[in-house]
Amino acid sequence: MANAVVLFSGGLDSTTCLALAKDKGFDCHALSFNYSQRHASELKAAQAIAARHDAKHHIFPLDLGLFGGSALTDNAVAVPDYDAESNDIPITYVPARNTIFLSLALALAEVVDAQDIFLGVSAVDYSGYPDCRPEYIEAFTNMANLATKSAIDGHPVKIHTPLVHLNKAETIRLGMGLGIDYAQTVSCYQADVQGRACGACDSCFLRKKGFSEANVADPTVYI
Amino acid sequence: MANAVVLFSGGLDSTTCLALAKDKGFDCHALSFNYSQRHASELKAAQAIAARHDAKHHIFPLDLGLFGGSALTDNAVAVPDYDAESNDIPITYVPARNTIFLSLALALAEVVDAQDIFLGVSAVDYSGYPDCRPEYIEAFTNMANLATKSAIDGHPVKIHTPLVHLNKAETIRLGMGLGIDYAQTVSCYQADVQGRACGACDSCFLRKKGFSEANVADPTVYI
Repeated sequence: MANAVVLFSGGLDSTTCLALAKDKGFDCHALSFNYSQRHASELKAAQAIAARHDAKHHIFPLDLGLFGGSALTDNAVAVPDYDAESNDIPITYVPARNTIFLSLALALAEVVDAQDIFLGVSAVDYSGYPDCRPEYIEAFTNMANLATKSAIDGHPVKIHTPLVHLNKAETIRLGMGLGIDYAQTVSCYQADVQGRACGACDSCFLRKKGFSEANVADPTVYI
Repeated sequence: MANAVVLFSGGLDSTTCLALAKDKGFDCHALSFNYSQRHASELKAAQAIAARHDAKHHIFPLDLGLFGGSALTDNAVAVPDYDAESNDIPITYVPARNTIFLSLALALAEVVDAQDIFLGVSAVDYSGYPDCRPEYIEAFTNMANLATKSAIDGHPVKIHTPLVHLNKAETIRLGMGLGIDYAQTVSCYQADVQGRACGACDSCFLRKKGFSEANVADPTVYI
């Protein structure tokens, strides 16, 4: 079995990605970051889900709070409620987050001899972050294949974004077919220590709408 | 004065880069990583040099030793002596290192409103690492300018590699003209706690040769 690295937060999207990678026959290394995120409960969920899906779980400490600049890493900045009117990139944007995450996934991939990296971004039901778009992923792949010894040695990396053109409802239906227990997953930007969701942030809004459109009972526990 | 982020190890090249960025009029944020590197003395040197050149110094903890795969981050792997016969990428290569470093520099740049990042790579006197080549830097820049909110808002980033076409002697001559005290800098892959150099590794070999070719007395203290 070939190895794959799956960027894995323990949320709805990355859990679906993990199940998909397993389903494609990969031996999965799930990579989570402890980035002084408000939602430490997400990491607990991630551990349980990785175990359920038989993946090796790596938790890499990464204190992005040292830089600040985002509601997700800076406790002085409040997480806003979902705002349907706004077209701006919201304050929950973390500077260069997917670039940092993919870079570390690239390093792990090289160490475990994986040529496949899975990332659960979507450019449909998403918060408008620039580092979720297909053109960004393509540019990262081009860069990655000039960056590493593995690529130079003829083993380029491929970044799989199987959810990129799916809306949240389609992702949920896909995951249900793969036997995911979405009750285990935590998506909320400010979940409490028990992993209960606020129901008001962007991430909660998109998730709730997804279950509703998919005609699947929402298993999320709200505060 | 515009801000710049300078990737800064406290070695010969990155110190020259810092002095150049200052000379160009930038207000510098020097970014160092504590990546369980063997040469913690390099970080001490970095602090002193940043102070001398009036730069803000950020030390970001980044435990690349968790992944392993390199003599620079894995204590179980010995640092080899310089080998003139070999054309291979040496075991001192750290998987995806410059990609990870540049990603974090990109995040810091966005937070401090800097559009300029300085990186002291050279593709002349170097260890053959793929992530030191101009084509890699160009691909990283393309990716970075699709990745961030700043770029989308019309503030793209530029990555300056002023040493890329210089050999070590040319870099040293340039730095001497900028008033650098190279005695403060530590380049050795396995310097001891006092910052004394082994004199045998790739990095020592290239540095020693550089001072010799530049006709500058080598200020390095060897073990």
